[in-house]
Amino acid sequence: MEKVIDNHDLAALDQRFRAALVNSLSGFKSLNLVGTRSATGATNLAIFNSVFHLGAHPALAGLVVRPDSVERHTLDNILATRFYTINQVHHGIYRQAHQTAARYARDVSEFDACGLTPEYRAGIAAPFVKESYVRLGVEFKQRIDIGLNGTVLVLGQILQIHFPEQCQCADGYLDLEKAGTLAGSGLDSYHRTQRIERLSYAKPGVPLQEVLPEYLVEPGNFT
Amino acid sequence: MEKVIDNHDLAALDQRFRAALVNSLSGFKSLNLVGTRSATGATNLAIFNSVFHLGAHPALAGLVVRPDSVERHTLDNILATRFYTINQVHHGIYRQAHQTAARYARDVSEFDACGLTPEYRAGIAAPFVKESYVRLGVEFKQRIDIGLNGTVLVLGQILQIHFPEQCQCADGYLDLEKAGTLAGSGLDSYHRTQRIERLSYAKPGVPLQEVLPEYLVEPGNFT
Repeated sequence: MEKVIDNHDLAALDQRFRAALVNSLSGFKSLNLVGTRSATGATNLAIFNSVFHLGAHPALAGLVVRPDSVERHTLDNILATRFYTINQVHHGIYRQAHQTAARYARDVSEFDACGLTPEYRAGIAAPFVKESYVRLGVEFKQRIDIGLNGTVLVLGQILQIHFPEQCQCADGYLDLEKAGTLAGSGLDSYHRTQRIERLSYAKPGVPLQEVLPEYLVEPGNFT
Repeated sequence: MEKVIDNHDLAALDQRFRAALVNSLSGFKSLNLVGTRSATGATNLAIFNSVFHLGAHPALAGLVVRPDSVERHTLDNILATRFYTINQVHHGIYRQAHQTAARYARDVSEFDACGLTPEYRAGIAAPFVKESYVRLGVEFKQRIDIGLNGTVLVLGQILQIHFPEQCQCADGYLDLEKAGTLAGSGLDSYHRTQRIERLSYAKPGVPLQEVLPEYLVEPGNFT
C-alpha cells in the first residue's frame, strides 16, 4: 500500500522519527571522511553523507554542514586553514568512520579515538586518512549560508586525487565498487553495491548499450 | 599501486576522460527523476544524480543544475511553475530513466519518449512518475547561482512524500533497498545495494551496535 505524508503530517512527527524519514528521501548517499587541522595543528575527522559533485572543470565538490553539530569543528578548521581532505569510506573502515560522528571534546582527535591514521602529502595542509583508498585534497573556495535552515554549503576545488590504479577504466571512470566504497542511506545505514551495468550516452531514438569495463592496468590487489 | 593526479594533470586531460574521472570522486550518488511542467502544460522529465538532503525540519532537498544542458528545461519549468517532483529510480526503470538524459526537442515529453507515465496529485503542480515507488512533491524555495562554474543550486521544500508502507521501519527510516532504489556512480553506472548493517547513534567510548530492522507493517508485495 502506498503511504502519503504531507508537510503538515511531517511537522507533527516526533523529531527523531522525522529525521530518519526525511534523511531517506533523497536516495543513496556518498560516504566520506573529511579530514582537517586546526590553526594550532590539532587534527579532526568527521563522516559526511553530503559530499556532492559540483563540476569537473574546475573539479569542484560541495559539502553540507549542519549548524550546532560536531561538523562545526570541521567547518571551523576549513575556514582557518583553507584546506581539507575527502576520503571515501570503504567496507574495511565503515565502523570507525561511523564512530567519528560521536561528540568528542575539541581536544580529542577522532583519528586517535576511532583508530584511523592521519597521513600528509605536500601541497595539502590537512590530514588524509591512510586507510582510505580514494582520497581528495581540497582547497576551500566558497561558503554559502542557507537562510532557510541555517546550514552551510562549503565549496572547494579538488587539487589532488589519490586512487588505486587498478580501479580506473580506460575512459576515466573510477570503479568505486572495486575500491570497496560504500553507499549510505538514511542516517546510519551502510551498503555494499553490485553493478547492474554502465549505460552508453543517451541520444534520442538510439537504443542504449551496456558499456563493458576496460581497465587501464591488470586487476590485482591494491592494498 | 596508488595513482596521484593533481590539478595540473587534471587540466591537461581530455574533457570526457576528466568528466568521467571527476564525476567518480564524490562517491555513490542518488538517482532521481525530476518531473516538471511548463507554464503551457508541457511535461518534462530528467534524471539527476545530484539530489541531496539539506534538512529535515523543514524538509528540504537540493539539486545541482548544470548550465547549457538538457537540465535547463527542468530549471526553466521550476522557475515558471514553482513545483517539481523527485522520483527515486529503481531497478525496474533505470534504463528509461537514463534515456531521459537524451537531448530531446523542447516540444517532446520525455515521459512519452522514454516510456514512463505522468501522474498528478492534488497540491503539486508537477507530474510524478507513476512507475516510481518513493516520490516527493516539492515546492521551489531558492535559487543559488554558483559563480565558480555557472551551475545553479535549486533548493525546495518537500510537501508530499509517497512510499510503500512496507518499506518504513519503526523508527521512521525508509528501507530504500527494499524499495529497489538504485545508487549511481560516475555519469552512467547503475548499482543495486546490499545492506551491511545500520549502526547505533555514535557516542564517545560506547561500542557501536547493529540496529536490527523492525518494519511498521508486515512484509508483502508493494507493487
